[in-house]
Amino acid sequence: MTIQLYELAGKDDRRFSPYCWRTRMALEHKGLEYETVPVRFTDKDIIAFSGQERIPVIRDGDTVISDSWDIAEYLEAHYPGGASLFGGEIGHGLARFLNVWTDRTLHLALIKLVIADILAHVDDADREYFIESRSARFGKPPQDVQTRSEADMKAFGHAVSTIKAALGEDAFLAGDAPAYGDYILFGAFAWARSISDFPLIEAENPVYAWRERMLDLYGGMPRKAVGYDV
Amino acid sequence: MTIQLYELAGKDDRRFSPYCWRTRMALEHKGLEYETVPVRFTDKDIIAFSGQERIPVIRDGDTVISDSWDIAEYLEAHYPGGASLFGGEIGHGLARFLNVWTDRTLHLALIKLVIADILAHVDDADREYFIESRSARFGKPPQDVQTRSEADMKAFGHAVSTIKAALGEDAFLAGDAPAYGDYILFGAFAWARSISDFPLIEAENPVYAWRERMLDLYGGMPRKAVGYDV
Repeated sequence: MTIQLYELAGKDDRRFSPYCWRTRMALEHKGLEYETVPVRFTDKDIIAFSGQERIPVIRDGDTVISDSWDIAEYLEAHYPGGASLFGGEIGHGLARFLNVWTDRTLHLALIKLVIADILAHVDDADREYFIESRSARFGKPPQDVQTRSEADMKAFGHAVSTIKAALGEDAFLAGDAPAYGDYILFGAFAWARSISDFPLIEAENPVYAWRERMLDLYGGMPRKAVGYDV
Repeated sequence: MTIQLYELAGKDDRRFSPYCWRTRMALEHKGLEYETVPVRFTDKDIIAFSGQERIPVIRDGDTVISDSWDIAEYLEAHYPGGASLFGGEIGHGLARFLNVWTDRTLHLALIKLVIADILAHVDDADREYFIESRSARFGKPPQDVQTRSEADMKAFGHAVSTIKAALGEDAFLAGDAPAYGDYILFGAFAWARSISDFPLIEAENPVYAWRERMLDLYGGMPRKAVGYDV
């Protein structure tokens, strides 16, 4: 049965939620059939059936799951036949650490560099919602957050250097093949690429080559998604 | 055959290297026989056989390995019969991420809170070396670094909250039983405990209970090590 993935979408069908990207990659990893349903920030009614207001949401037959982490756990438990997302209990706990770090550190560092670019790509219906909610969060409007100050660039550079060191000489964080940890990190870059042409990583950085490998996965699905070629 | 672990030691046999703690816990995890050899900062000659100047170093028969991460990889590869440290390739990559984060973020946040306390517990022979090397690193002497400013307390609190969220409802980061990821994190707290009575974690914080569980492992070996009961 085809799984439905309810996914944040902006103008020109840009899919710009890092959390939805994690789920999309996890579905590909498991080799599951899925179709995506675009949802705007203000389309709360479309996902009301999930009993909450945030994406991603998946509907798998009669099962409805929201929250990218819970979805990953569900897919791992209910589709054990496909490739493993976590590689067992030890990998599951460590992936959760990476999940927390990415949500709290990598995403915060990244959004400061691209938040005004997001604004330029949200659907017109979401524009006011986005400005109000993000201005409340940062205490100033998106264009005043996205100054790409030396301190903000340094914080993001520190996060990228952590990823670089963690990759070591391996092709993927998980080794020779990607797993959920790679998707957690990739979600951030897939999000940025969908709405910003700002070059986040130097071409010589091994993290750049890793991102290229991630974009080529699953028949190049991530690269074919609407976004900037950075 | 008994493995020798060359380990940093201060006054009163305090073992205060987080990296040596990682190795010690990994040896216990694998159920290997080992003995520790105390080494002061200025005892470079004792570990000269390793071809480098940093601890931990292990000697396992004719094999000599330095660097806690390389030692963990060695133990996992050469003693596959014991419990796994990484849980496979996926967990190995994710543990390396945690290793990098701990080295660069958790340790940096922690040392600012206890660096003068370290100075009070290094061997007299190491005192000058410690002051000079750390003053060069921080641009000021240990007592001027350890002010426990609001910003420094906040940075450490942020690191602890990341660990808390990563633990979730589990007993250990690795789930029901500890693995190398737990030892990476625990090294920081075992180090702090050995030289400082500063209470780093509120008793109500789940990270406190996790640290208690870690101290009880392996017959309470970590708790029996010389240190403060914090």
